[in-house]
Amino acid sequence: MSEPPKEPSDLTGPRVEDIPEGDDRVRLICPDCGFIHYENPKVVVGAVVVSGDRILLCRRAIAPRKGYWTLPAGYMELNESPEAGAMREAWEEAFAKIEIDHLLAIYTIARLSQVQLIYRARLLDEKIKPGIESQAVGLFKWEDIPWSEIAFPTVHWALHHHRELGDTKNFAPRTNPVDHPEGITENDIGSL
Amino acid sequence: MSEPPKEPSDLTGPRVEDIPEGDDRVRLICPDCGFIHYENPKVVVGAVVVSGDRILLCRRAIAPRKGYWTLPAGYMELNESPEAGAMREAWEEAFAKIEIDHLLAIYTIARLSQVQLIYRARLLDEKIKPGIESQAVGLFKWEDIPWSEIAFPTVHWALHHHRELGDTKNFAPRTNPVDHPEGITENDIGSL
Repeated sequence: MSEPPKEPSDLTGPRVEDIPEGDDRVRLICPDCGFIHYENPKVVVGAVVVSGDRILLCRRAIAPRKGYWTLPAGYMELNESPEAGAMREAWEEAFAKIEIDHLLAIYTIARLSQVQLIYRARLLDEKIKPGIESQAVGLFKWEDIPWSEIAFPTVHWALHHHRELGDTKNFAPRTNPVDHPEGITENDIGSL
Repeated sequence: MSEPPKEPSDLTGPRVEDIPEGDDRVRLICPDCGFIHYENPKVVVGAVVVSGDRILLCRRAIAPRKGYWTLPAGYMELNESPEAGAMREAWEEAFAKIEIDHLLAIYTIARLSQVQLIYRARLLDEKIKPGIESQAVGLFKWEDIPWSEIAFPTVHWALHHHRELGDTKNFAPRTNPVDHPEGITENDIGSL
């Protein structure tokens, strides 16, 4: 996943809390230039990419969770579809050409204001290599997945949901596990 | 749907295009305060809300498409789940208490950098009334829907997808119609 966008510091940029005219919520406003910083949840797009019985994982070269394994995923960019974003991230992080099959899951991390759209996909060419945000990339059989070195709880969720569904077609996308209805908390990170 | 967030004017706020250090895309930067305006797609959450054989529609009191009929929907806010956002919008626009049933569709409007998550929902109490962004609200049988006064193409898509699916359970959410793979264009607005 990409580095989260930089937040304004305390010294410059939008930093005064106020409710703009015609709005009903407090927003951050810049006292220097008047700019109103509307913040909305961000969409993360990614994929569980398979080649036969193996799954593509990327070892993160950047914070957070540097050195841990994750799915190719990152922030959706402007003017793209979620599917195109998931394909772009697979290419950027693992030079992986993929074919999207089905929306596997929608996870909500309310604490981080993230909506994650994770697709099921097929690797079209095993010639993969690490992109700039990856230290390494690999194709893992289920029993060889480095479970103790997985970067995020949502990666666990997606891998297990993917396995449960097998080749099922036309299913409702999975959502947060029932014990995480609103997404992970600080304490969950790294504990799964 | 809510008014889109105000964009920075040409005179104040982030307005200089440059690639920030460590980034690979052009972003808008404020020359006055240095703030970097990272923009990502926004999530619209909404619902096709039914009470028996009737569907809830809201007549827009605000631009764009003021006076036209739409589904209760709007921008997802920080720290909420998509389902909670759809429930909030139904309440804000129609004082409608709803129960979410199933994710009906994910539409992408790449031109507007919007991802729309539209749910299938049930109205829990027919005591509805217009919220501040609605001129009127109503429950319509299929044949009584004001088809020539529908606000947006995605409302047409959602209504038809809802009808096609009937009471189907456990289905893959519908996506843009095949003739609109990347979402609507300027010419489509109002033409459906």
